Amino acid sequence: MQMKFVQDYYPIDFAQCYGCGSQNDFGHQIKTYWDGDETVTKFTPKPYHTSVPGFVYGGLLASLIDCHGTGTAALAAFKNENRDVDTLPPFRFVTASLQVDYLKPTPIGVELEIRGKVVELKGRKVTSEISLFANGIETVKGKVIAVQIPENFGKSQ
Amino acid sequence: MQMKFVQDYYPIDFAQCYGCGSQNDFGHQIKTYWDGDETVTKFTPKPYHTSVPGFVYGGLLASLIDCHGTGTAALAAFKNENRDVDTLPPFRFVTASLQVDYLKPTPIGVELEIRGKVVELKGRKVTSEISLFANGIETVKGKVIAVQIPENFGKSQ
Repeated sequence: MQMKFVQDYYPIDFAQCYGCGSQNDFGHQIKTYWDGDETVTKFTPKPYHTSVPGFVYGGLLASLIDCHGTGTAALAAFKNENRDVDTLPPFRFVTASLQVDYLKPTPIGVELEIRGKVVELKGRKVTSEISLFANGIETVKGKVIAVQIPENFGKSQ
Repeated sequence: MQMKFVQDYYPIDFAQCYGCGSQNDFGHQIKTYWDGDETVTKFTPKPYHTSVPGFVYGGLLASLIDCHGTGTAALAAFKNENRDVDTLPPFRFVTASLQVDYLKPTPIGVELEIRGKVVELKGRKVTSEISLFANGIETVKGKVIAVQIPENFGKSQ
């Protein structure tokens, strides 16, 4: 039960995201799941995701924090309704606000572990605190405020 | 003078960055320059940089804010010494902290304009405020604290 990846159950129209969409062949296709009371995503950057040689590009790290935050929000919303991720209706969140603090350089060439804790779930908004680890060392931390995608998303553009 | 792109003058060892490195064939290769008292980067996302169909992936937008912040910091450091970007020694910054607020969905398929203002330059640290525009509408804003890359970057890992 706990190892189901929330992104695998996003509605097909909302599964195109470069960060987490199962339908985006060019993207990162991250997968987020519960591990006890924390959420986890694992990701190995490509060799070209470099910043200074030997270290991971900060924009990718910000992206991982961001995507892990929306995945965490969806997981939290299911849990709040005491439902599993493969039940209907699905939940899909987008990011309203992202804070990223780079604590130390993140080495490239190893699998990164991104772990999240739900800080608040209030109405359609979920706040999570996220840490990214390389070789077990926390190199980046962040905070994501995610909101459940509005029915009219993008319609006012 | 003002249209010189600061990234074109990064030392070759520091020009591998996926976001802004001229030597990274897979990366975004953003280019940042002065426009009066503001800094500018222009970037057109690829079709696969989607979030929900029709809109740009938030992780890319965060990356653009991030990279524009380090480019802005380098430009500010040269200006602070009353030097042009093609003079020596060069400046190269990395991000310490990144804040991104998504104001509204960013449409895909148009060139984005990212504009920065230097808020503070203090020692090796430059803080900038950054806005991202699509079709002239501000869709994302952010704040970047960038620090001049330490001589021993990554050596303590």
